Amino acid sequence: MTKRTAIAETHIRVSFGDCDPAGIVFYPNFYRWVDGLFHLFLDGAAGGHAALCERIGSVGIGLKAAEMSFRSPVMPGQELKLEINRLDWKERSFEVTYLGMVGDRTAIAGKETRTVFVKKDARIRAGNTAELRSIFDKSA
Amino acid sequence: MTKRTAIAETHIRVSFGDCDPAGIVFYPNFYRWVDGLFHLFLDGAAGGHAALCERIGSVGIGLKAAEMSFRSPVMPGQELKLEINRLDWKERSFEVTYLGMVGDRTAIAGKETRTVFVKKDARIRAGNTAELRSIFDKSA
Amino acid sequence: MTKRTAIAETHIRVSFGDCDPAGIVFYPNFYRWVDGLFHLFLDGAAGGHAALCERIGSVGIGLKAAEMSFRSPVMPGQELKLEINRLDWKERSFEVTYLGMVGDRTAIAGKETRTVFVKKDARIRAGNTAELRSIFDKSA
Amino acid sequence: MTKRTAIAETHIRVSFGDCDPAGIVFYPNFYRWVDGLFHLFLDGAAGGHAALCERIGSVGIGLKAAEMSFRSPVMPGQELKLEINRLDWKERSFEVTYLGMVGDRTAIAGKETRTVFVKKDARIRAGNTAELRSIFDKSA
Repeated sequence: MTKRTAIAETHIRVSFGDCDPAGIVFYPNFYRWVDGLFHLFLDGAAGGHAALCERIGSVGIGLKAAEMSFRSPVMPGQELKLEINRLDWKERSFEVTYLGMVGDRTAIAGKETRTVFVKKDARIRAGNTAELRSIFDKSA
Repeated sequence: MTKRTAIAETHIRVSFGDCDPAGIVFYPNFYRWVDGLFHLFLDGAAGGHAALCERIGSVGIGLKAAEMSFRSPVMPGQELKLEINRLDWKERSFEVTYLGMVGDRTAIAGKETRTVFVKKDARIRAGNTAELRSIFDKSA
Repeated sequence: MTKRTAIAETHIRVSFGDCDPAGIVFYPNFYRWVDGLFHLFLDGAAGGHAALCERIGSVGIGLKAAEMSFRSPVMPGQELKLEINRLDWKERSFEVTYLGMVGDRTAIAGKETRTVFVKKDARIRAGNTAELRSIFDKSA
Repeated sequence: MTKRTAIAETHIRVSFGDCDPAGIVFYPNFYRWVDGLFHLFLDGAAGGHAALCERIGSVGIGLKAAEMSFRSPVMPGQELKLEINRLDWKERSFEVTYLGMVGDRTAIAGKETRTVFVKKDARIRAGNTAELRSIFDKSA
């Protein structure tokens, strides 16, 4: 049996100001953190978002959709371990799957659907993901 | 044919600082804004979150899950009209459906699954939603 | 005796998620709000930040310094009235003075020192403020 | 000659979403980060904000004022090293001095004036700082 390996990982020390009057993380912050992990992954895998976009002729690797389930509350002083677990590819979008743990318990599970936005005839549209996938595969 | 009426509505003037280096709204802000609209709705329907929680013995009307699709980009200076369109009730959770428009185009569509959190035997769990639903129905 | 007139004004409905575990506004949000008011002022006085920067050849009307005093706490559901009270001009910077009230009491008082950033020989520096001041004066 | 030692220190990997359409850090985030460092310092020096407040009978170690100068821009992918350099004590407030560096250059310099808020006769006021200072001194 093999241990699952995360594609990317970061640790967030949850601060007082990340939390709301109920004393737990204000949930939009979880989206901020998963987006931050995706960009950290780009830094490692592709020289960062700006360099990557220039290389593949994209105006941004942006969001089509996002979803998250909040499994257990996270409080000030706790350390949230965030992972990218999977990348799933479609022709014009890809999904990034996240897991957030505090010690042994699951805090959040989420998924972003992202697109390689390209500009064509002054319109922004979802471009083909093949080149991006190839760059990620080579860096893995 | 009848015109659809929003359950609650707000207008957000999107500012420079709400946007990222791509020049469009940084997506966690949309979650911040729909959460803000839900709380604005509570202010009107139930005297606000704190008073409501005290009344129904809840520690918070919090999130179980959230999802959103980003249909078109929103930029600095644009006005985002956000609406709550539907409330759908289950025994231990309810769904809040959001729509965000900039003029005639859809910017975002989203849904929060919320729960009436109650404390029982030092544990937080999802309580019954019947009393909350009844309060909302009376205020409608 | 004349009543003081604000240069620009906005009203912020403080939400649950703007507040921290102490139940009061998490203070960086006040800076977010004053910055938002400055940009709202630019929308009215100069066609917005992007158009203004293009017109005067600036890469941004950005911050050199900011300061604020927090006079009384602001809580969820309260309405914060924010004003720009003064603009004070120097050759290479200008100061924007803010006042935030909740009803009759002062919540915050703040000041931003801003600069017209210009790019010269691949370096960013503080440009002359005369043209910006002239645009503001004409729109007043 | 001795090297100056920071009282507390943290490193922030600046992300795409921390930045604005000018491509540099949206300045309220710097306040969020210095507040985060202060709370990290409390975690180490005093068991965290909640435990500390209970111990000294305070409702919060909150802000009276804050100020910051922005010396050079910080961009996505850069690492910001934040330090608390000094604590200066007065009878009813204390100042926390921050320095933020990116490599060898200064990015920001800031100062928070904080107070030990206490509740007396249903009013919140600034309490004496002596006990807090004593706790910090013992942990140093």
